[in-house]
Amino acid sequence: MVCSVELLCVGNELLIGKVLNSNAQWIGDRVTRLAGVVRRITAVGDDVEEISSAVKEALTRKPNFVITTGGLGPTFDDKTLQGIAIAVNRPLKVNDQALKMVEEKYRLAYESGRLKKVEITQYRLKMATLPDGAIPLNNPIGTAPGVLFQGDGTAIVSLPGVPAEMKAIFEESVVPLIRKASGGLTFYEKSLIVTRIIESDLAPIIDEVMRDNSYVYIKSHPSGAERTMLSTIELHVSTTAENVDLARERVEKAINQISALIVSQGGKIA
Amino acid sequence: MVCSVELLCVGNELLIGKVLNSNAQWIGDRVTRLAGVVRRITAVGDDVEEISSAVKEALTRKPNFVITTGGLGPTFDDKTLQGIAIAVNRPLKVNDQALKMVEEKYRLAYESGRLKKVEITQYRLKMATLPDGAIPLNNPIGTAPGVLFQGDGTAIVSLPGVPAEMKAIFEESVVPLIRKASGGLTFYEKSLIVTRIIESDLAPIIDEVMRDNSYVYIKSHPSGAERTMLSTIELHVSTTAENVDLARERVEKAINQISALIVSQGGKIA
Repeated sequence: MVCSVELLCVGNELLIGKVLNSNAQWIGDRVTRLAGVVRRITAVGDDVEEISSAVKEALTRKPNFVITTGGLGPTFDDKTLQGIAIAVNRPLKVNDQALKMVEEKYRLAYESGRLKKVEITQYRLKMATLPDGAIPLNNPIGTAPGVLFQGDGTAIVSLPGVPAEMKAIFEESVVPLIRKASGGLTFYEKSLIVTRIIESDLAPIIDEVMRDNSYVYIKSHPSGAERTMLSTIELHVSTTAENVDLARERVEKAINQISALIVSQGGKIA
Repeated sequence: MVCSVELLCVGNELLIGKVLNSNAQWIGDRVTRLAGVVRRITAVGDDVEEISSAVKEALTRKPNFVITTGGLGPTFDDKTLQGIAIAVNRPLKVNDQALKMVEEKYRLAYESGRLKKVEITQYRLKMATLPDGAIPLNNPIGTAPGVLFQGDGTAIVSLPGVPAEMKAIFEESVVPLIRKASGGLTFYEKSLIVTRIIESDLAPIIDEVMRDNSYVYIKSHPSGAERTMLSTIELHVSTTAENVDLARERVEKAINQISALIVSQGGKIA
């Protein structure tokens, strides 16, 4: 059973190139290592229409999970939950459990003297206002809770954009969900560095080895251009299998075969 | 006239988190500085169906440009042009001009002794096989040309995934197109670093200043969590206007107003 995931990253800062989307990379890596498969990553701006359209489109592709990042905070442009509410056709409502979580954060800050008074302004209340039916996920680091909306076949998980908060909620609340959905599969990968052969001459070799190793995926990553004919190429070999021994065996078999072919063509394995 | 752009980044390495999508950040920054607006960034795997679906979806949103990165090389999993051909319903054909470009690269490599013979294998021919009606864009660094397909209202530009090649083709061939489409508009931005005030207390201030400065966009980027009540917040203030003087004037006016409000609430501008 493959556990499929789509990421939706919300924030103008991603579109204008102010911020590198390291959240998407981190989640992509984490999901892959949990033997889930990320099918698509989308970034949109802080715009309710854009967010709700992107969520609706993702839902039509029926992934097991849609994971969103960003747009959960107190400012006017934190609009992710509004977008999701429209996409799943549920009203936004103050969630009692989420409100308790948010109040607790401000109470602790007040008690330690870092905040002058505990007051749930409309801006703070916003962080406890969720699509009806959603549940909050504990944020061990920041104020805005994560949010889980279990839809029809797809769970929508919303995480904050601040990386430390996103990661903490992911580890605590999302990892168990993905582990369960990916049913004990294991991801395994290994890389080879290849020199003295250019990518267009590696291409038929990769074709042959992938034909003979149908469970294994081989991808070439050139650095240094083909034009110089002096390129270094990373060959990334990976698979997902029922257990780590089988996965390793498949990857090693493919690597032995491709290494022999590369050397026979005058290439070198670094 | 706003010049709208969508990015489509192709490559399994982006989905599994092996590679950070720095191409998307670089293009987002470049397009923004050329006064274009990036509306959406999508990353999909090396899969013809995924690529063609994503291109079709982007075309329905009618941006001025769809810019793709990755998937132009010689290996089996370089499938971007196949996906585009399906999306625009054109056959793939060897393009004479592209073939000349590719042949020239191998001829130069042969003449300098870096390649044993000039031979256009099927894998090399692939880099000159474009959707019918497309034109190749000179690649000053690598072998695979970029590709421009002028569709109905939307131009589809395909660039390689290797960053140096992507950037070189963008600067040489894409910048003039975006500059023309964005009709002389200018982007201007400035950031403030704010301390001693937390994001939920900044929220109403941002609301007020954005109401009074309708052309200006203000976004808060917290680092350090709200919970600690000791956060540092970057306020990013930006606008796009007919000329740089007007743009600067609008941004400065908003910054003066917001700075005064922050200080009046006990915050500090670093």
